[in-house]
Amino acid sequence: MGIRIGILGYGNLGRGMECAVKQNPDMELVAVFTRRNPEDVKILTEKAAVCRVEDAAEWKDKIDVMILCGGSATDLPGQTPEYAKLFHVVDSFDTHAKIPQHFANVDAAAKEGGKVAVISVGWDPGLFSLNRMYANAILPDGKDYTFWGKGVSQGHSDAIRRIAGVKNAKQYTIPVDEALESVRKGENPELTTRQKHTRECFVVLEEGADEGKVEEEIKTMPNYFADYDTTVHFISEEELLNEHGGIPHGGFVIRSGRTGWEGENQHVIEYGLKLDSNPEFTASVIVAYARAAYRLASEGQSGCKTVFDIAPAYLSAKSGEELRAELL
Amino acid sequence: MGIRIGILGYGNLGRGMECAVKQNPDMELVAVFTRRNPEDVKILTEKAAVCRVEDAAEWKDKIDVMILCGGSATDLPGQTPEYAKLFHVVDSFDTHAKIPQHFANVDAAAKEGGKVAVISVGWDPGLFSLNRMYANAILPDGKDYTFWGKGVSQGHSDAIRRIAGVKNAKQYTIPVDEALESVRKGENPELTTRQKHTRECFVVLEEGADEGKVEEEIKTMPNYFADYDTTVHFISEEELLNEHGGIPHGGFVIRSGRTGWEGENQHVIEYGLKLDSNPEFTASVIVAYARAAYRLASEGQSGCKTVFDIAPAYLSAKSGEELRAELL
Repeated sequence: MGIRIGILGYGNLGRGMECAVKQNPDMELVAVFTRRNPEDVKILTEKAAVCRVEDAAEWKDKIDVMILCGGSATDLPGQTPEYAKLFHVVDSFDTHAKIPQHFANVDAAAKEGGKVAVISVGWDPGLFSLNRMYANAILPDGKDYTFWGKGVSQGHSDAIRRIAGVKNAKQYTIPVDEALESVRKGENPELTTRQKHTRECFVVLEEGADEGKVEEEIKTMPNYFADYDTTVHFISEEELLNEHGGIPHGGFVIRSGRTGWEGENQHVIEYGLKLDSNPEFTASVIVAYARAAYRLASEGQSGCKTVFDIAPAYLSAKSGEELRAELL
Repeated sequence: MGIRIGILGYGNLGRGMECAVKQNPDMELVAVFTRRNPEDVKILTEKAAVCRVEDAAEWKDKIDVMILCGGSATDLPGQTPEYAKLFHVVDSFDTHAKIPQHFANVDAAAKEGGKVAVISVGWDPGLFSLNRMYANAILPDGKDYTFWGKGVSQGHSDAIRRIAGVKNAKQYTIPVDEALESVRKGENPELTTRQKHTRECFVVLEEGADEGKVEEEIKTMPNYFADYDTTVHFISEEELLNEHGGIPHGGFVIRSGRTGWEGENQHVIEYGLKLDSNPEFTASVIVAYARAAYRLASEGQSGCKTVFDIAPAYLSAKSGEELRAELL
């Protein structure tokens, strides 16, 4: 029997998780927990149960790792400590400023339960963090850049949908090519928010809504759009669904730094992702860390970890011998 | 007092190591060990000693981590096990096929001495291996590509210099743009050796040597050049020194893979390096792993490790709290 996985929350990320578990033969999806009526939730895995989230505690001895697929704003701050007392858990908590507090809460709970919890897993935070950290350790005298996109920002799409007269919308975050090229050349530019990314919006209006008014409201929205060069396209609902139905994303982490007795040599380290499906890729990262959580626990560890604290080999289904022979 | 570092071997890599130690305030270079007459070896660090390699054992209690800067063919197979009995050690052993045997030898010696040894550190093997491993764990259904260059291959440059009539030479390995672009698009091409890299040679002839004969001998050299599209330029010694005096290198590790219930979505993970100085960058990686070796040892660990076995946080001089607040 493989590592027994539970999924808590069955939105885009939860569905991606189900697919990721299927790709890993050493894992088995046991149950999906939902706030909806379980009878209304159809999942893809034949042998897995669909249960009410209130019944999760009853699965304490039947699930090894519970993957928490809720949101960072209101779900995970409560859920991750709660379930870390009962299961090994992995979450994708991504409110950067609140990570230290979340870490402390989850660490206390996981230690109380003798469980391993891994927080803030995915690609940013997650793989991008790893690459920032490795690159900083290797090139102490250098400068970091992170670019996001081209990809769909759910937060910005939601913000547009809240405007009166908007029926539906999709927003793409796009890195500015000139900025990216300058960073890649090691020119170490100082970049404003506007110089790093542009925002492109595809908007479906309610009947009778005023294009000019909506466009103005988008472009001047504080925090979300006012500091960016923003383009707005008005399209039909059909075009939105056909042409902008996916959830692609990606981005780049780049560090340039100097070495040599007098800093005479320059180096550029670049990590890039190009993702057709943000939630499915995020889920694939989380599933690898679920394996790590299970293995760390079998060695007697407990408490909260991040991607910084986990040796890479724990993520792989291969043995140390296989990894050294095939991938080193 | 910081981590006390010894450098064994003072060629390009050893000199890069000295520069890298200087960039890390928690480390201190104590001594450089050389096979040459120590009086003939001038180093840059004022307070460090220059000693005969035969006297290294006398430094057992004065050095924490001995960094082995010899070659993989004849130096490291003997040196790493020998010194792992006396010091924590890091090497850059890069003969991929012999890594399992080297690991076993070093592991036995390090355990006997109660020391931590980290082998095969640098960028390939090293950072490229890490990226192959992370990407494989995250996208189990995918395909790996490694491209090297544009950069100087010392082995190929040496091979040209051994040809009769050649006074000096420098060889660049260059990835083929079309192959790289196809991989980045996720087309998963099957690529022959010739389709992945080209080789460009800059050659200085002895007086009276025959250009045509040397060019023919280079282009038909088995293993080194015969399987590649090779360009040969004959230049003056002055031009070689002025225009081709550096040791740049770099390359790309790319994995493309599929996710989704039916593999309907595609993702591309790319890691790239662009290095002005191959030995200085390699040294910068090794110094970070020297810190990790020292820390693992202070937790009571011993034996042989690779980059796969070491949690990223051990590489950084920052605390866990700092890493979570600043880089996660």
